[in-house]
Amino acid sequence: MTNSFNDNPHRRLNILTGEWILVSPHRTKRPWQGKTEKSATTDLPEYEPSCYLCPTNERMGGEFNPSYDKPYSFVNDFSALLPNVQEESYKNGLLYAESESGICKVVCFSPNHSLTLPLMSVPDIVDVISLWQKEYKELGAIDGINHVQIFENKGDIMGCSNPHPHGQIWAQNKIPQEVHKKIGNQKAYWEKHGRSILEDYVEQELQLDERIIVENEHFVALTPYWAVWPYEAMILPKRKLAHIGLLSESEKLAYAQILKQLTIRYDNIFNTSFPYSAGIHQAPTDGKEHPEWHFHMLFYPPLLRSATVKKFMVGYEMFANPQRDITAEQAAVTMKSLSNVHYSNLG
Amino acid sequence: MTNSFNDNPHRRLNILTGEWILVSPHRTKRPWQGKTEKSATTDLPEYEPSCYLCPTNERMGGEFNPSYDKPYSFVNDFSALLPNVQEESYKNGLLYAESESGICKVVCFSPNHSLTLPLMSVPDIVDVISLWQKEYKELGAIDGINHVQIFENKGDIMGCSNPHPHGQIWAQNKIPQEVHKKIGNQKAYWEKHGRSILEDYVEQELQLDERIIVENEHFVALTPYWAVWPYEAMILPKRKLAHIGLLSESEKLAYAQILKQLTIRYDNIFNTSFPYSAGIHQAPTDGKEHPEWHFHMLFYPPLLRSATVKKFMVGYEMFANPQRDITAEQAAVTMKSLSNVHYSNLG
Ligand SMILES: O=P(O)(O)O[C@H]1O[C@H](CO)[C@@H](O)[C@H](O)[C@H]1O
Ligand SMILES: O=P(O)(O)O[C@H]1O[C@H](CO)[C@@H](O)[C@H](O)[C@H]1O
Repeated sequence: MTNSFNDNPHRRLNILTGEWILVSPHRTKRPWQGKTEKSATTDLPEYEPSCYLCPTNERMGGEFNPSYDKPYSFVNDFSALLPNVQEESYKNGLLYAESESGICKVVCFSPNHSLTLPLMSVPDIVDVISLWQKEYKELGAIDGINHVQIFENKGDIMGCSNPHPHGQIWAQNKIPQEVHKKIGNQKAYWEKHGRSILEDYVEQELQLDERIIVENEHFVALTPYWAVWPYEAMILPKRKLAHIGLLSESEKLAYAQILKQLTIRYDNIFNTSFPYSAGIHQAPTDGKEHPEWHFHMLFYPPLLRSATVKKFMVGYEMFANPQRDITAEQAAVTMKSLSNVHYSNLG
Repeated sequence: MTNSFNDNPHRRLNILTGEWILVSPHRTKRPWQGKTEKSATTDLPEYEPSCYLCPTNERMGGEFNPSYDKPYSFVNDFSALLPNVQEESYKNGLLYAESESGICKVVCFSPNHSLTLPLMSVPDIVDVISLWQKEYKELGAIDGINHVQIFENKGDIMGCSNPHPHGQIWAQNKIPQEVHKKIGNQKAYWEKHGRSILEDYVEQELQLDERIIVENEHFVALTPYWAVWPYEAMILPKRKLAHIGLLSESEKLAYAQILKQLTIRYDNIFNTSFPYSAGIHQAPTDGKEHPEWHFHMLFYPPLLRSATVKKFMVGYEMFANPQRDITAEQAAVTMKSLSNVHYSNLG
């Protein structure tokens, strides 16, 4: 890193999407008189009678959840995508549309209403990963499902309407926009170098050791050089795995461990249940070989200065460029230095 | 519009950015138990002693505002871009960065702390447009400033920390990401057809009359076919104008009129001061001819169902595709049917 970039405005390239982001390191001193958020509620009961995700309770669609004791998934009662939509495409002058089919599922991480990933045990997180693997495989095997997006919205400021630990899966026919960009750039690199771009990237990051938050034998959690959100992070396997279905047992364990360690550090930044959207980007399920793919999980958390002040991706960010104030390196230093033990378990 | 697309999930193409968005019209019945926002405060004083944007008051940087009575601009006390940053570019393996220079300004729309665009008189809005024109021209003429982004963040849920009516301008050396996409698609169309893509688009929309909110002699406000935000709207001139500097006097008046009418309708949707980010996309100031450009102003408002329930662009939207529930046509019908008179002036 040249010196001037630590202090002066600059742009960085996201090598996966091919898009630039603006970094303004000198601007961290800006005072904030604007909106503050409520800090996340804690101290939830293990079972909440009015929660439509707790075992045995009635869901919004009228069905009842089984008395599940492992991670449990079901079709979303208000799916944004529907299966078997009639295939159609529409073109009228400058209007272009096409039908879309898919399946939306909800994945309850635990029967225990009061938990979150950082508070779950490693074996219980392994079970979540096993269910993700099963869903990726089964949904991906359905005729006409070419992409499976696994994600979690955590915290009410991330649009999550229920604190019961859960994520979602939207599986669909077309390759989504964001993934489409990543396919192109990974493919170009693969064709040129015969290696995945993330394999080379993770190797470089391990060598530089400026943005690594935590690592273990098989996985790394780091702040990508092109991070947009204040405490954005990426978890990726050290060896090239196109999708989570390819994890060995010991890799699955290592993934669960790093997931727990990263999310504990998140909660420890501001001693709060840290809100974020997390998502796994992996090979499409279109039946083609995808040697270019290296799966990775991204965390986009909005909090900036405290448990109640977030970064707004608004005006300039919407019309021009994503923009951040603290650098990726500063964020990584903070997260690296935090305890591996959750603040609620520290005396 | 074929019938099935009014009810079934489909994707639509944004002809300016080349990106697809997902529409789920069947999903509007989804109940909401999640986060609600505070409704915007009204009844502000005309002068607020603690406001750093009111005339004669001290700003956060220590300077004092003049006793201005027309729209007034100054350099942002916490600029994200700085002028004359030393030009540098950095490449180290898979890390790519480059320096960026620019100027950030604040534009106070009125000395009156209690106003917003829909509550201002048309002649006073004409004065705002005149100041935007002056800034676009003067900033754009500075050596090394190749793009001028004019925008407004309105409402605290849009990251605006002060209700005093104001917008911002970030002018910079590099072409921002979002504008870069629009240049490519406008250029390709121009080269093929010898007309601007938006000239043809506005003609088609006027003919179809399904997404027009309001129009006058020179301008149209419509819901773009590919709108992402629930009540997203675009204001554009009927004839091809590459930038706001080219407006005739009567066009400037027509622009002010439609700005007032659109923002009144926004406030009338939920009888609240409607939050949004608005931005003007126009020709770069890189000294080149830009015959492909047709300037347009976009409004991205987050409210979805009421003054307190917004649409969250989170998990799926971040990792896969922007997604909306109500269709652009439904939003346009609602906005078209609303009164031209601000709700606060209706008995
Ligand atoms: O400069 P302001 O109004 O304090 O800041 C606001 O607008 C900026 C430009 O869209 C954003 O970068 C900030 O996140 C937002 O809070
Ligand atoms: O399905 P949920 O959890 O009710 O909805 C949440 O996640 C979805 C997928 O990211 C978003 O479309 C919604 O805006 C958000 O509120």
